[in-house]
Amino acid sequence: MKTSVGEIAALVEGTLIRGDAGVVLTNFAALDQADATCVSFYGNPNYREQLESTRAGLVLVPDAGVSAPEGAALVVVANPVIAFDRIVRCYGVTPPPFEAGVSAAAFVHPKAQLDTTVVSVAPNATVASGALIGNGSRIGAGAVIGQDAVIGEDCLIGPNVTICQGCIIGDRVILHPGVVVGADGFGFEFVEGRHRKIEQLGIVRIGNDVEIGASTTIDRARFGETVIGEGTKIDNQVQIGHNCIIGRHCIIVAQVGISGSTRIGDYVTLAAQSGVAGHLVIADRVTFGGRSGVIASVREPGGTYFGYPARPFKENRREAMRIKQLGSLFRRVKALESGTVADSGNEE
Amino acid sequence: MKTSVGEIAALVEGTLIRGDAGVVLTNFAALDQADATCVSFYGNPNYREQLESTRAGLVLVPDAGVSAPEGAALVVVANPVIAFDRIVRCYGVTPPPFEAGVSAAAFVHPKAQLDTTVVSVAPNATVASGALIGNGSRIGAGAVIGQDAVIGEDCLIGPNVTICQGCIIGDRVILHPGVVVGADGFGFEFVEGRHRKIEQLGIVRIGNDVEIGASTTIDRARFGETVIGEGTKIDNQVQIGHNCIIGRHCIIVAQVGISGSTRIGDYVTLAAQSGVAGHLVIADRVTFGGRSGVIASVREPGGTYFGYPARPFKENRREAMRIKQLGSLFRRVKALESGTVADSGNEE
Amino acid sequence: MKTSVGEIAALVEGTLIRGDAGVVLTNFAALDQADATCVSFYGNPNYREQLESTRAGLVLVPDAGVSAPEGAALVVVANPVIAFDRIVRCYGVTPPPFEAGVSAAAFVHPKAQLDTTVVSVAPNATVASGALIGNGSRIGAGAVIGQDAVIGEDCLIGPNVTICQGCIIGDRVILHPGVVVGADGFGFEFVEGRHRKIEQLGIVRIGNDVEIGASTTIDRARFGETVIGEGTKIDNQVQIGHNCIIGRHCIIVAQVGISGSTRIGDYVTLAAQSGVAGHLVIADRVTFGGRSGVIASVREPGGTYFGYPARPFKENRREAMRIKQLGSLFRRVKALESGTVADSGNEE
Repeated sequence: MKTSVGEIAALVEGTLIRGDAGVVLTNFAALDQADATCVSFYGNPNYREQLESTRAGLVLVPDAGVSAPEGAALVVVANPVIAFDRIVRCYGVTPPPFEAGVSAAAFVHPKAQLDTTVVSVAPNATVASGALIGNGSRIGAGAVIGQDAVIGEDCLIGPNVTICQGCIIGDRVILHPGVVVGADGFGFEFVEGRHRKIEQLGIVRIGNDVEIGASTTIDRARFGETVIGEGTKIDNQVQIGHNCIIGRHCIIVAQVGISGSTRIGDYVTLAAQSGVAGHLVIADRVTFGGRSGVIASVREPGGTYFGYPARPFKENRREAMRIKQLGSLFRRVKALESGTVADSGNEE
Repeated sequence: MKTSVGEIAALVEGTLIRGDAGVVLTNFAALDQADATCVSFYGNPNYREQLESTRAGLVLVPDAGVSAPEGAALVVVANPVIAFDRIVRCYGVTPPPFEAGVSAAAFVHPKAQLDTTVVSVAPNATVASGALIGNGSRIGAGAVIGQDAVIGEDCLIGPNVTICQGCIIGDRVILHPGVVVGADGFGFEFVEGRHRKIEQLGIVRIGNDVEIGASTTIDRARFGETVIGEGTKIDNQVQIGHNCIIGRHCIIVAQVGISGSTRIGDYVTLAAQSGVAGHLVIADRVTFGGRSGVIASVREPGGTYFGYPARPFKENRREAMRIKQLGSLFRRVKALESGTVADSGNEE
Repeated sequence: MKTSVGEIAALVEGTLIRGDAGVVLTNFAALDQADATCVSFYGNPNYREQLESTRAGLVLVPDAGVSAPEGAALVVVANPVIAFDRIVRCYGVTPPPFEAGVSAAAFVHPKAQLDTTVVSVAPNATVASGALIGNGSRIGAGAVIGQDAVIGEDCLIGPNVTICQGCIIGDRVILHPGVVVGADGFGFEFVEGRHRKIEQLGIVRIGNDVEIGASTTIDRARFGETVIGEGTKIDNQVQIGHNCIIGRHCIIVAQVGISGSTRIGDYVTLAAQSGVAGHLVIADRVTFGGRSGVIASVREPGGTYFGYPARPFKENRREAMRIKQLGSLFRRVKALESGTVADSGNEE
């Protein structure tokens, strides 16, 4: 990005009320992160303090009556949030445009099924025999599409992604770099002092409009399917075990782990670093707080749970309060033992 | 998979006692996950309720005296578990067959050591100078075998795996996609306000019959070896630090982390999301529950530990019980303070 | 490594005071891990017990007055630690040497910017249009450098690393295998029952002398930059969310997760498996113990915090003590209820 205060004012159809139109801007940032090279925006009175101390070179503001440091040029616009978004879209780093065709440096098996005039396969990607790539999809550099795998239409398969044999990906799915779909589930029998592998002969099926973050791993089913429901969004470094059924429109935040054969309903949220044990059932619209450890099924829809073991939010908070008050409880018991009564305050 | 009720009955040498032999089946699933397109099985009376409400198109049953929904065809076989396994092996998604030869789209350094008539190197794989690939091993697409690394016989090195310089892999080892073996250990000295790298000059040695899950990382030793013992099975997204010695036939479940220089005995189980601090010693046959945080050595073999810090199972459970009873304890102390005695129930 | 007791003695300019100079040595190890094929060292009286029971073939010792098993040859040197380091550097597994040039099996876009006489691009690596590779840098096999990304000088970009479009890497940066820099941040708006993607149009900027461990993921900013400060060292499988600003010379140990828009100061340490919530501010020189869960900003520099929620070390320890003493507290309350006073010992 290389622009100026004047160009930005023109782009957002705003009015420069203070500052030099010729000042060069090379970046954008939030008010508290901006320096003199940055355009920023003030769209919410909650950020008044940040506005008052910002070092931004230019701030988009909703009216002339704001208080900002002298160093900041000011441009008045009707809606600073929308105007800023316009700047970001204009100057931000966008993904490379879709270019149809198979790179000469890619390997596409002659028995792969794809229309090279409407799909994009980057250098050093591998598309194995029988794999099917839907129209409008792009396969990133170094990605590997296994034998007989199916990729829907308009998908974005990132660099160095691996999709193993037979797995099925819906339409408009985004897989970020390093994702692994369809590695074997973790299943062994203990026979005569050794762990003997149980063959994993199912697949992973990923619904339409799913997005999966970098280095997330989703194991194939022992038999049948591991399923990620339509519209579900999964963050980075999430692990989903074999035969899990994840519902539609869920949010699964970074570093969550879900053990095998668990079924998660629709619109479930799992905050970061949570874990869910195997063979459980979680109802629709349940929310688990960060780092929850879920070791029992949750049959009632819509609740909020925290802690390890995960419990209803209020119960978890009550217990945390009691633990916090333990010091005073010890003192109260000591007072009772010595024949006096301590002040119990307003504790339980 | 595309088959019919009649074909399945013939395959498992069973007797169709109800339903239409011509009904088409396209998948298999557990009783509670099956729909009309699926074959399922009933092998254990614990699942009677699931049988009674299944929507499977066909169920393999041990005798005619079972109660299943009318929509389900029924085939009687001697052992439904074994019969179902036969169907899965027949129609399941199996790994692509071994095909000897080096893909023209792979890079194999002229000084790599391998017999191209009995190993398989997939497109876009890289085998560096001095690397040795044992007979019967296959190197997946996009995998990188570093300089002088040694791969034993009949190994399965998955797509996009990285094995760094000098590391040694035994026979019949399975590395799933995205595994990294032999990245540098995390070691720095703090000198004049900066962290100075301590060179990591050892290797990783992986024993025979080890299986390692997707995106697991195992660091090379500072000097000498990081060791994974024979027959140990490691799940996805596990992190093993430099100079760790992991014993034989261990089970290490997803997202576990083991810090540097720790020694784990044989037949140890670490359940999901556990962590083990550095420089500890864990005796043989010890089991750690999910999300244990192990911060002290465990010298006695065979115990079961839970919690953070990890403690013997009973001790951990007792403490959890006491915390659960805190509400009542607060009430009892309040009663004492007010001169009455609350009912302590059957608590401690 | 293949050497002998005599050769080692000569290499370290030491004096063989016991044992046969011809004995073959093939490895090196710490005293407690060494066997007869290994050279080891005794540099610190804390390890006297390990010395007395070592099975090493040769031990470097500071003087002749030590007590070691008869099987161990002994070589006296002035400083065993330095002498051992010399052996490791001589015989250890070093990274492959830098070799300038672009492999014929790599893909470098004609519009990439690099001087092929002074950079190294390994087989099956991909360098996209507009990407710039600084002099002295090497790009590992299977790595992907996205469009317009900038790599500084003397960097080591490991195999199967992905650097996405527009991201900027400083000088002397080391990225271990499987690292993903610049995948999209995790941001969605909930509109009419579906999660709609918020475009992620910023970049990741990584300072000079940063080292990042295997399979770590760092997301691009929504707008502006996600920043990793100069000299910071990050271990394996760490997740850093969009718009985080990580300071200089921090230590972030394995499997840590940092949510979006959090700002970490300089010289901060996050021990393994910790998590930090989003939009927080952490002051300089703060240390978080293993598995801390940080859910509030820490404004005061220099403290040490533990637990979930993370609290000052002493507070956390006091609470842990109280929980440990709960059994006795229950007994004391019971005694009070029955009209006697239990011995409260030296507890609170």
